[in-house]
Amino acid sequence: MSSDAPVPFDVGLLSPVTAGYDQDTSDAAVLVALVAAEVALARAWARVGAAPGVLAEAIADALGAQPSPDEPGLPETSWLSAADLAVAARAGGNPVIPLVGALKQRVPAEAAEWVHRGATSQDIVDSALMLTARRAGGQIVADLEAIESQLAARAAAHRGDVAVARTLGQHAVPTTIGLRLATWLGGITRARSRLAGVLGELPAQLGGAGGTLASFVEVGGVAAASGLPGAFAAELGLAAPDAPWHTTRWPVTELGDALTQATDALGVIAGDVVTLSRTEIGELAEGSGGGSSAMPHKRNPAAAVLVRSAALRAPHLSATLHTAAALAVDERPDGAWHAEWPALRELLRLGRGAAATTAGLVAGLRIAPSAAARNLTMTEGLILAERVALVLTPLLGTDATADLLARAGAGEPLADLVTAAAGAAGADLDVAQLLDPAGYLGLADSLVDAAVSRAASPEEPS
Amino acid sequence: MSSDAPVPFDVGLLSPVTAGYDQDTSDAAVLVALVAAEVALARAWARVGAAPGVLAEAIADALGAQPSPDEPGLPETSWLSAADLAVAARAGGNPVIPLVGALKQRVPAEAAEWVHRGATSQDIVDSALMLTARRAGGQIVADLEAIESQLAARAAAHRGDVAVARTLGQHAVPTTIGLRLATWLGGITRARSRLAGVLGELPAQLGGAGGTLASFVEVGGVAAASGLPGAFAAELGLAAPDAPWHTTRWPVTELGDALTQATDALGVIAGDVVTLSRTEIGELAEGSGGGSSAMPHKRNPAAAVLVRSAALRAPHLSATLHTAAALAVDERPDGAWHAEWPALRELLRLGRGAAATTAGLVAGLRIAPSAAARNLTMTEGLILAERVALVLTPLLGTDATADLLARAGAGEPLADLVTAAAGAAGADLDVAQLLDPAGYLGLADSLVDAAVSRAASPEEPS
Amino acid sequence: MSSDAPVPFDVGLLSPVTAGYDQDTSDAAVLVALVAAEVALARAWARVGAAPGVLAEAIADALGAQPSPDEPGLPETSWLSAADLAVAARAGGNPVIPLVGALKQRVPAEAAEWVHRGATSQDIVDSALMLTARRAGGQIVADLEAIESQLAARAAAHRGDVAVARTLGQHAVPTTIGLRLATWLGGITRARSRLAGVLGELPAQLGGAGGTLASFVEVGGVAAASGLPGAFAAELGLAAPDAPWHTTRWPVTELGDALTQATDALGVIAGDVVTLSRTEIGELAEGSGGGSSAMPHKRNPAAAVLVRSAALRAPHLSATLHTAAALAVDERPDGAWHAEWPALRELLRLGRGAAATTAGLVAGLRIAPSAAARNLTMTEGLILAERVALVLTPLLGTDATADLLARAGAGEPLADLVTAAAGAAGADLDVAQLLDPAGYLGLADSLVDAAVSRAASPEEPS
Amino acid sequence: MSSDAPVPFDVGLLSPVTAGYDQDTSDAAVLVALVAAEVALARAWARVGAAPGVLAEAIADALGAQPSPDEPGLPETSWLSAADLAVAARAGGNPVIPLVGALKQRVPAEAAEWVHRGATSQDIVDSALMLTARRAGGQIVADLEAIESQLAARAAAHRGDVAVARTLGQHAVPTTIGLRLATWLGGITRARSRLAGVLGELPAQLGGAGGTLASFVEVGGVAAASGLPGAFAAELGLAAPDAPWHTTRWPVTELGDALTQATDALGVIAGDVVTLSRTEIGELAEGSGGGSSAMPHKRNPAAAVLVRSAALRAPHLSATLHTAAALAVDERPDGAWHAEWPALRELLRLGRGAAATTAGLVAGLRIAPSAAARNLTMTEGLILAERVALVLTPLLGTDATADLLARAGAGEPLADLVTAAAGAAGADLDVAQLLDPAGYLGLADSLVDAAVSRAASPEEPS
Repeated sequence: MSSDAPVPFDVGLLSPVTAGYDQDTSDAAVLVALVAAEVALARAWARVGAAPGVLAEAIADALGAQPSPDEPGLPETSWLSAADLAVAARAGGNPVIPLVGALKQRVPAEAAEWVHRGATSQDIVDSALMLTARRAGGQIVADLEAIESQLAARAAAHRGDVAVARTLGQHAVPTTIGLRLATWLGGITRARSRLAGVLGELPAQLGGAGGTLASFVEVGGVAAASGLPGAFAAELGLAAPDAPWHTTRWPVTELGDALTQATDALGVIAGDVVTLSRTEIGELAEGSGGGSSAMPHKRNPAAAVLVRSAALRAPHLSATLHTAAALAVDERPDGAWHAEWPALRELLRLGRGAAATTAGLVAGLRIAPSAAARNLTMTEGLILAERVALVLTPLLGTDATADLLARAGAGEPLADLVTAAAGAAGADLDVAQLLDPAGYLGLADSLVDAAVSRAASPEEPS
Repeated sequence: MSSDAPVPFDVGLLSPVTAGYDQDTSDAAVLVALVAAEVALARAWARVGAAPGVLAEAIADALGAQPSPDEPGLPETSWLSAADLAVAARAGGNPVIPLVGALKQRVPAEAAEWVHRGATSQDIVDSALMLTARRAGGQIVADLEAIESQLAARAAAHRGDVAVARTLGQHAVPTTIGLRLATWLGGITRARSRLAGVLGELPAQLGGAGGTLASFVEVGGVAAASGLPGAFAAELGLAAPDAPWHTTRWPVTELGDALTQATDALGVIAGDVVTLSRTEIGELAEGSGGGSSAMPHKRNPAAAVLVRSAALRAPHLSATLHTAAALAVDERPDGAWHAEWPALRELLRLGRGAAATTAGLVAGLRIAPSAAARNLTMTEGLILAERVALVLTPLLGTDATADLLARAGAGEPLADLVTAAAGAAGADLDVAQLLDPAGYLGLADSLVDAAVSRAASPEEPS
Repeated sequence: MSSDAPVPFDVGLLSPVTAGYDQDTSDAAVLVALVAAEVALARAWARVGAAPGVLAEAIADALGAQPSPDEPGLPETSWLSAADLAVAARAGGNPVIPLVGALKQRVPAEAAEWVHRGATSQDIVDSALMLTARRAGGQIVADLEAIESQLAARAAAHRGDVAVARTLGQHAVPTTIGLRLATWLGGITRARSRLAGVLGELPAQLGGAGGTLASFVEVGGVAAASGLPGAFAAELGLAAPDAPWHTTRWPVTELGDALTQATDALGVIAGDVVTLSRTEIGELAEGSGGGSSAMPHKRNPAAAVLVRSAALRAPHLSATLHTAAALAVDERPDGAWHAEWPALRELLRLGRGAAATTAGLVAGLRIAPSAAARNLTMTEGLILAERVALVLTPLLGTDATADLLARAGAGEPLADLVTAAAGAAGADLDVAQLLDPAGYLGLADSLVDAAVSRAASPEEPS
Repeated sequence: MSSDAPVPFDVGLLSPVTAGYDQDTSDAAVLVALVAAEVALARAWARVGAAPGVLAEAIADALGAQPSPDEPGLPETSWLSAADLAVAARAGGNPVIPLVGALKQRVPAEAAEWVHRGATSQDIVDSALMLTARRAGGQIVADLEAIESQLAARAAAHRGDVAVARTLGQHAVPTTIGLRLATWLGGITRARSRLAGVLGELPAQLGGAGGTLASFVEVGGVAAASGLPGAFAAELGLAAPDAPWHTTRWPVTELGDALTQATDALGVIAGDVVTLSRTEIGELAEGSGGGSSAMPHKRNPAAAVLVRSAALRAPHLSATLHTAAALAVDERPDGAWHAEWPALRELLRLGRGAAATTAGLVAGLRIAPSAAARNLTMTEGLILAERVALVLTPLLGTDATADLLARAGAGEPLADLVTAAAGAAGADLDVAQLLDPAGYLGLADSLVDAAVSRAASPEEPS
């Protein structure tokens, strides 16, 4: 039961899907966001006229936060140890308590009272996580847009490549490679749009100890306190909150839901890539498939496998957020709030890693129309059986048509059966045309075009 | 391993939170929706000019679906056994296959070919579940609006009743009963708004076996097939789909997320009701608290307990939907789709039951401002400690203020300590006013007003 | 918000994987178990000498519970409406409250006081669910044993049929069909063993209102009360509890975990069946694959798809039980307990349906060694690359071996490359033997034998 | 979508419940375990006589693994960068591939071929995670034993302290502080016993690329290969596997279930501590409750709040493992396996942090029998209503008794009502004794004794 010195718990060893993409969601990034929230609060006090601007800027300067025209400069936190704060956080249950002590020591003495002025820990943690989400989420949106751009181009390019549509794992009817890619694209476009919408609404948190803003009123009066949340949010580039949301956790769950919607859509792509890369199918291959020196024939869909691992985990993390939201009692929850932090952060991490990995996957994806064409022929025309039924039923009736198809299913050549039946019925059918998969594609082309037209393009970022 | 005759599995015995509210989500309701989808498809074929209108209406008549000015009449399905369909569904994996056989027998022979014309099972199941969701979801929205209306009225009524705000279970600072109710209200308003938005976007599904609409083109040509999904959706009162979503499951997950957001918000109310109804606290009681003849003193918050049970279950159901969405491979998923049906339907059931139960709870809620006032005094002024600190620090300095509060925390009367310290510092403090909880409420009133103004009102249904 | 008459919510329409197997877990079965628990309590009172035996038997008779040598007769409950009890349960939060009222009316007046004597609702609900679990669980164990028996026989039969082992979806090295079946078998054997162990430990619940058994002591004295839980458990065929477990929910979670372990193992079989039934792979087919009149070529793995749907849902239900267990506060939980009932019952249902469906699947499974043999050749010997590397490295060194394999991976015939390299190195290699998949099967046979020897056999039921 | 240099993602900043207890589950610890598995494999080869012992020891020496009498020395890995391995892991999907390359460079050239000899990455990752689990799990068991020891002592000490039992948040009947502690204890004892059992069965993994052990047979022959898994397991202190479990994931899920059972039991304690520490209740307080300089009256149950946060998260992590287990297809899963690693590791981390935190909480817990006694009186005798009903019903009949209790429930003094009724019925009741909570404790004392006797004690570690 002894407590030792903290260690870096996770540097990515068990998280290859995110390795290399963890910067914006790391503890270091969160620590920057926590300090940024404290700086923003001091500046917000100045903005509403309650604090001298010079003191707010003294705080910002001492914490290395350089203002710039369109966003507040992010503070410099290398003097702080996130690991030490973590251990110190145990006493009060969150890292802001020890952090505020350190910040007050760091800033000029005359400015210290404006550090964390009137705020409660939850104001800072929640706002910092929203800031982290906005920044990491912006990267995810950019990755998703890159995926859309790639998929749109390739869907258009493979618009005419016929392939097999599979249901319950079985060949069903013809489709096109383009439509498959366009369907992936549709899921990504929706997820990106939803995520971007949520990111644009992420609110700052500012309510004080009991969510009444009483401390802010005490310090600055009603007018200043009324303006403070909006000013604070503006400093952070977040939305002004309708009200404190200490126990009304939709900002967290809507974000988690949108991130999971993104990993869902990415997971679908990954799942199809694994299947279509199977040795027996071979319609796709990753550009840099994980090879194996001892198994040179393997074209491991390593990126897809990693993306799937993220997609399988995300729903459980999102459920953690909802469980916590449902238990957000009193004026601050007794554990549910604390359960959110790592779950939300891991969702951001997975979203970023999965999106970036899929962007690479899609960019390098090798598509083999010839393999798709080969697979099309495997059932010797039977993937046109639905069409044959539609065409023959008026000629032969339901029963004779079913009988013909059953014989074909049992192995008799479909073309021969159709030719014979049409002849017997006196019908003039072009059997070769009837059984041409390319002639039974429905609205595939227009579905591709529509999906492409809805996608983000580099020229029109969402 | 024998298979016996089907039994009614669930009539509500283990689901008291929904008992009495299960009609719109029951198997009977789903069966009606499945048949309604088939009727809608026949009518859509007529609407796009491919089927003779008389045949479509013959189908509708035979299935008891009477049209009305603003919504399609729902069919009459008492001649069908949902339980028998369930068993028959095992062979092909879904209930539409046996259902279509039964429907073709039921309609006039000349119309039979227009039953399920060109459709795949998933078109019907997905559309029917969306229709079920729209209907049950509308009830949930109405329940949530009723809750909002009640909470808005009561928040306004208790705007001036001071109470204790609790964080981590401990008395923290003053708040008002009105603000607590307004905070609940804010969560409900957001959830209702999100749910209503999702319900308005629920799309019909129509893609045919491989999602290309090839069968529809074969039957009716490109123009008719292009118009068919929109016509089908219009018949069902659903949104026209952007594209087939057989493997792009955001319509399901966005719905599940919104339902869970609703149960989250309801769960927060329920959790607070349980706590504030505790024998020691007594600030709330359910109007018809579950009594016990053997324990007449108990004021069991039975409704709140049931609502909590729903709120604890919903996140796991929503996660099931996301897991399924992430595994929606090929042109139809191999099990993930089938996993959605009961999970989505149970979420709808829980949403409806929890919302209706909470509506009753809130309507009957007994609020005891006197108990809140009594609890306010328990810490003998210490819930004003934050305010005292803000006021005394400029007079005494940080250290002396902290010392004073520590002594108060250890048991010395706070008022005496403050009076003495202010006197020693030569300050003229009105200590009674300083320690009056009613004077330290910040923006509570305006937060109440804002929440009330955002709420649904009976006059302005969303 | 109105409450209407109850309807049969679920008759299986959306649950094809369980349709036909729902009897032992239905509300009707739970109602029988609830009444059985009340009968058992009366008899237990008689057994410990506190109640006149004649009154206990009068209760049993009135409730239609006929004793038999080895198990208590189950009561007859057709006079009760589970749906009405469900609605009546809302007032107090559970169905036992109205049930007890009905039972007291049903039994002879002089016996009525011994109905529910000293018990609390949770004693009855928990014990009834354990009884339900024991009965349904026994069926699941029997289904799993049937699966084991089938798999053991078929693993032995296909012990010598060589096939491709696939990792990350790619052909890797040879294995045997027998070993694949034996691996499935190993998972089932472990799950069955664990489930049977848990079922054997399922405890009755008997603690009275606060878990002290005070009411039982008041009624019968210390000695009788001390013996009562054991007597009650014996009447129900359950284990005697160590202590009341109103808030110590391991009996529920260990059961849920074991059921999920079973669906996990079934899900693995189902997943492999779907993959190996793919049109391109064709090594397996379900005996009664869901056909399609319009697509006669499809061999839909309908049973596997349904089993997968159950396996995808179960983990979320099990997590619901753990969430509830972690929230089991006070002397009876305030919602967490109520959340358990439907989740546990659905897990039992899914376990039963998935096991029974898999039993049918496995019994009818069509195995195609010829397809497996064909697939073995697809990489033209490269699935022996690992072996080639092990053999050539000592001859050629690491680099030259890697180079040779890279060339083979790029398309040069492996046999030719090996023959040439071995010749150049002066080695006498039997290249045909080296590249024979049947020669690189390691311990596959003995792994099959070991799995078969651990499996349940019809002669030795666990 | 750019990939930057890796950063330490998580040093505990958002995980206060585990901060200071992360050593045994950190990436550093996992890296040591990965290398330990490779060393163990080399030694196992020597042990079965296939590799020269001197080469195996050369590997061990080069990797800093010093043998000791009872456990293999753990290797020294400071020369490796886990973060770099993480990024390098992306290409092939797991960190073993780059690790093996590094190890082969590190050991003497003549020994290099015995590094990772015949193994597949999954053999090493799975075995390393089991080793990590055994080590961290052992700490958790020790923490749980410490909790048991504390709870047993305190349950015995408070065996006679009467308190209120609460159900659905309401005062119900009397109990004792001792029984409450003993109930907590019972949950911990069961969880510890189950976890210890699982830890003792954790198997090593050794199957080679396809789970046939073919490579091991090729290298060492059948006899050596047959003995290798057992020898490998022995080197690691793990159980010998029945068979390769690449796709049979019960070792992972049983472990996850047991860890979650532990956090469930810890969560119950934490939940009760939060409730019983509420300002209005005050029966418990944490020894070092998180104070607040601005709110000196708060006795924040900070440790309990943190433990609750872990208990709320764990079920979702455990469900992740089951989801992955159900999707363990082919001869190695295509993403499900990769999803396990971080989920299992986080469960170990949470188990360790929650157990250690609870151990501290329980050791310092301040119990206030006087507050419990005060709360006992709040309902003015009505918590004896159940007893009164049992005693009066034979005297007055059911209706009159119910009437009396209803009047008491409405506010008339219960003692007066009972005295009057008993007098009117000519009964000689000692009303004061009847209404003494200490007289209505049932078997509380013996339940305490039994729980204490089942608990781990320092003298008899499990």
